[in-house]
Amino acid sequence: MPGTPPTRFVYLGPEGTFAEQALRTVPAAERGDRTPARSVGEALDAVRAGEADAALVPLENSIGGAVGVTLDELVEGDPLVITREVVLPVEFVLAARTGTTLTDVGSVAAHPQASTQCRGWLREHLPDATVVDVLSNGAAAAGAASGEYDAAICAPIGATRHRLAVLADKIADHPDAVTRFALVSRPGPPPPPTGDDLTSLAVCLAHDRVGALLAVLMELAVRGVNMTRIESRPTGEALGRYVFFLDCAGHVADVRLGEALQGLRRVCADVRFLGSYPRHRWSTAAGDQQAPAPPGLTDADYADAAAWVARLRSGELN
Amino acid sequence: MPGTPPTRFVYLGPEGTFAEQALRTVPAAERGDRTPARSVGEALDAVRAGEADAALVPLENSIGGAVGVTLDELVEGDPLVITREVVLPVEFVLAARTGTTLTDVGSVAAHPQASTQCRGWLREHLPDATVVDVLSNGAAAAGAASGEYDAAICAPIGATRHRLAVLADKIADHPDAVTRFALVSRPGPPPPPTGDDLTSLAVCLAHDRVGALLAVLMELAVRGVNMTRIESRPTGEALGRYVFFLDCAGHVADVRLGEALQGLRRVCADVRFLGSYPRHRWSTAAGDQQAPAPPGLTDADYADAAAWVARLRSGELN
Amino acid sequence: MPGTPPTRFVYLGPEGTFAEQALRTVPAAERGDRTPARSVGEALDAVRAGEADAALVPLENSIGGAVGVTLDELVEGDPLVITREVVLPVEFVLAARTGTTLTDVGSVAAHPQASTQCRGWLREHLPDATVVDVLSNGAAAAGAASGEYDAAICAPIGATRHRLAVLADKIADHPDAVTRFALVSRPGPPPPPTGDDLTSLAVCLAHDRVGALLAVLMELAVRGVNMTRIESRPTGEALGRYVFFLDCAGHVADVRLGEALQGLRRVCADVRFLGSYPRHRWSTAAGDQQAPAPPGLTDADYADAAAWVARLRSGELN
Amino acid sequence: MPGTPPTRFVYLGPEGTFAEQALRTVPAAERGDRTPARSVGEALDAVRAGEADAALVPLENSIGGAVGVTLDELVEGDPLVITREVVLPVEFVLAARTGTTLTDVGSVAAHPQASTQCRGWLREHLPDATVVDVLSNGAAAAGAASGEYDAAICAPIGATRHRLAVLADKIADHPDAVTRFALVSRPGPPPPPTGDDLTSLAVCLAHDRVGALLAVLMELAVRGVNMTRIESRPTGEALGRYVFFLDCAGHVADVRLGEALQGLRRVCADVRFLGSYPRHRWSTAAGDQQAPAPPGLTDADYADAAAWVARLRSGELN
Repeated sequence: MPGTPPTRFVYLGPEGTFAEQALRTVPAAERGDRTPARSVGEALDAVRAGEADAALVPLENSIGGAVGVTLDELVEGDPLVITREVVLPVEFVLAARTGTTLTDVGSVAAHPQASTQCRGWLREHLPDATVVDVLSNGAAAAGAASGEYDAAICAPIGATRHRLAVLADKIADHPDAVTRFALVSRPGPPPPPTGDDLTSLAVCLAHDRVGALLAVLMELAVRGVNMTRIESRPTGEALGRYVFFLDCAGHVADVRLGEALQGLRRVCADVRFLGSYPRHRWSTAAGDQQAPAPPGLTDADYADAAAWVARLRSGELN
Repeated sequence: MPGTPPTRFVYLGPEGTFAEQALRTVPAAERGDRTPARSVGEALDAVRAGEADAALVPLENSIGGAVGVTLDELVEGDPLVITREVVLPVEFVLAARTGTTLTDVGSVAAHPQASTQCRGWLREHLPDATVVDVLSNGAAAAGAASGEYDAAICAPIGATRHRLAVLADKIADHPDAVTRFALVSRPGPPPPPTGDDLTSLAVCLAHDRVGALLAVLMELAVRGVNMTRIESRPTGEALGRYVFFLDCAGHVADVRLGEALQGLRRVCADVRFLGSYPRHRWSTAAGDQQAPAPPGLTDADYADAAAWVARLRSGELN
Repeated sequence: MPGTPPTRFVYLGPEGTFAEQALRTVPAAERGDRTPARSVGEALDAVRAGEADAALVPLENSIGGAVGVTLDELVEGDPLVITREVVLPVEFVLAARTGTTLTDVGSVAAHPQASTQCRGWLREHLPDATVVDVLSNGAAAAGAASGEYDAAICAPIGATRHRLAVLADKIADHPDAVTRFALVSRPGPPPPPTGDDLTSLAVCLAHDRVGALLAVLMELAVRGVNMTRIESRPTGEALGRYVFFLDCAGHVADVRLGEALQGLRRVCADVRFLGSYPRHRWSTAAGDQQAPAPPGLTDADYADAAAWVARLRSGELN
Repeated sequence: MPGTPPTRFVYLGPEGTFAEQALRTVPAAERGDRTPARSVGEALDAVRAGEADAALVPLENSIGGAVGVTLDELVEGDPLVITREVVLPVEFVLAARTGTTLTDVGSVAAHPQASTQCRGWLREHLPDATVVDVLSNGAAAAGAASGEYDAAICAPIGATRHRLAVLADKIADHPDAVTRFALVSRPGPPPPPTGDDLTSLAVCLAHDRVGALLAVLMELAVRGVNMTRIESRPTGEALGRYVFFLDCAGHVADVRLGEALQGLRRVCADVRFLGSYPRHRWSTAAGDQQAPAPPGLTDADYADAAAWVARLRSGELN
């Protein structure tokens, strides 16, 4: 029911990972039900089936890049839309059972992406420890809790969940690493424009030539729409056949973004709208905020131009 | 009064020139009043003042190029619109009083543009004759009729008007030379689209850089609008300040041309609409006919895309 | 003989017009021979035939626009190159025989373009005088000198030549009107770059579509070359077939302009190089001076990039 | 030593995976030494250190997309170049110890990407089996060989290596799935052009706006260079900061590709050349072969245009 705030949330599990931590930054989720899902696909299917109102899944990581499985799941199956983005600092900790000290640590459980991000810290502080690959940050924490491994690299929430002590925090080599998550719902009216919004799209080009991608960028550039992100994913048909995921500054309710979307609809083989939502204020770096519409591209400019052409068509005046 | 066919016509005089000949190809003018004007400006001002319903003035010649004064007069003063184009073959004749033969001709009166276009013929057939510059084709014929000159280079209608005999016809070096005239009226609803129309515009760029003209061409190219003609005219302010006259294939009632016009309105310092009207079928050369809208650019494609974005905005579906 | 300064000059006559006045601003011409020609074509043919070293002809006027005949003559026949531009303020005077006063003036001889440019002044100061069209500013002055007309609108030099008194000066409605002339020679090494040069070109598009002109502008834009002027002229073959005259900021010796020229040579049906020469400092208006090459487009950037690709090809390093 | 064919090869291990299978399609590798490496980074570092002559690593999979770790490792550290691509069909088999039948299978070991690609087959043929995630296809085969799991999803070579019987072959849902591998060496002269080559690049944009990516595509489009692949990878600095990996049709020795590379060098913050090498003939689909250079873009056209500009600069002729 449009207007009814979501109360039932799913997130990429297991418990005690960054996704749960990200979900808890959403006020409605903090008050509602939160259920872990075993995979991104399972989380999204729960929303599609109406078993949940919204799913929180990872979109990209500033170190590891796009989360391909999320993009693939968003573009297949029944349409879903992103209604919110959450950007979370990735703070890895080294956690162990109470009483363990750093000198006791001979084995460290870690998801391969986590140990990669902490490579420098491990080399300096645990040069002789064996790093054992496991399948998730939550599994690493569980393995340390069960005594299978001496310690785990995990999220702070993983240490808390498994009652582990934190031997060292902020151990990632890139202290500014972040993960960007999307809160995804069944189609409905987008959240109202805030003046600093993003619109996510998946587009299939009409053919696989530089000209086709150029045509997409032209449709955006002519309307002054900035693209903040472009990812290519294979379509699964053959090498060299891609679907492109674009994030554009602006909201579907903006006139110029609407006209650009119409242009993409006309020049692309397929366009899937993945939602308009407020941009997360995760950075104060120059250029990260949405620039105001350039001269000639405001909603008022569009209205003026449309009224002018309407007058021309009626023959009233110039 | 819209819908009332024009009955009072002016044309660039004097009588007996190509403009009168062109006007008489317009059925309503053949039945109505036809008055010569002393200049393009006078002809257009008569329409602006309501003393005439339509004016026929030259736009360009396939040898001499654009008729600058017409472009300048169209872009200044109260708005006027072109409702019809007439393309007339330029057939020059050598005319003289009855009884004169080619060997009698020692002096030939001609407008400089006319003698230029007949240079080859004159060199071959009248190598020893003196060519005297006069100010119009009509003045040349009048001068031959009065006996001031032995012969005149003029339009066929000029020979008829002044009861001159035609010593030689089709004497222009380019046998395919044509002049394009415009029938100009006060603003009113444009003639209905025929599927092969032209739209004329005058645009002032926002600044004088390649980027500004590139932006204009992009607005057209993104909507698949072909430009059949571009002329630059100085604005009179300074060297390097131009107004551009564009003819585009299509009609203001076409969705894609309307969107392109809106784009020009937004990116240019100024745009003056100079009319949408049927293209004159003056040539069968390849590429001269309006191509059908390319895939993605038909009115139906536009309607589909607009409906899609409307659905996205309402949140109904993808 | 390259390196030998020109000594024999021709200019568009008759004597006493703006062209003579412009030529006399060229130091070598002030010292050399100066011969009037009856037409632009005659002037250029004198240079082609070796009878003169250089010809001064009008290119464009800030009120009347391009001088079509000059453009046409430059693009036909044996190649010639522009080695210098001269920009001259157009100062019209009203001149009459000594003793004549303004109240005596009943008839004024003027070239139609001249009377057009002085329309406001005539309406205010000589509302009852008859304006008689003549074929050049020089002919107007001669007509006043002979007593055929009471006064003439002409160039200051025309009054001097025909010993006329100036009844009023600076009578043009646009006080800033200028005419731009070109000094044209047989092909030879261009004058050395000054850092503020122009390069003139005539290009024939491969086909008559917006895409072809867009391709030309792209070749310039990708190399950051600004176009300061674009004029279209009919080719004489048919309506809608044009040759474009471009002035670009920069010198053929500049690497980026050279690469842009190569690009035009490859994408156009034909390109004729019309010379690289210092820009006349005729205006201090913002934007009129050549901007320095943007980042990435200096000769040094080009040299660095070329050396890098050479290294890649040899496999030496990255 | 340039010219000496490589004899010591490393590949992404463990033994018995697709990478080993791909390497054995390279004749020199079939005759030379082949050593597995524990990671892509280790394989490339062995080449950088001179311990191996070439490394075979995965670039992308038609189902799973780009192999991010390979791209990241190629763009960091000392430069390496791709000298060959190998495209290998991904044929998964279900393998088990001799004597096992399909009905005996209660547990299946599989790398998550492998089980994802065989989801349909598993649902149909082993709906009740438990799928256990393991860290590589080789580890899955080893786990089945040791009796830890009843069966494994692995590459054909994995079954052979671990003396397993193949219960079912070609069990992937997409029968046409392929993986593309790169053979990577220290910098040296690229293999000679074959007329159907690819050039790989990593580019960092000057700023993160649609305009910067548009500028890159323009540099390619103006030279008629087709881009067959574009991937974005985060730089690790912040979200929204990317390095783009491009594959372009053509060879660095081609004039137009060289000029395009020079353009990218000038407009991008950084460009790393990753090699020119023959395209693998992995597909006969339309559009996959390199198109001949369009008119105006052949090496001969470039040579003609360069010679023309050289003549213009010397003043010799047009």
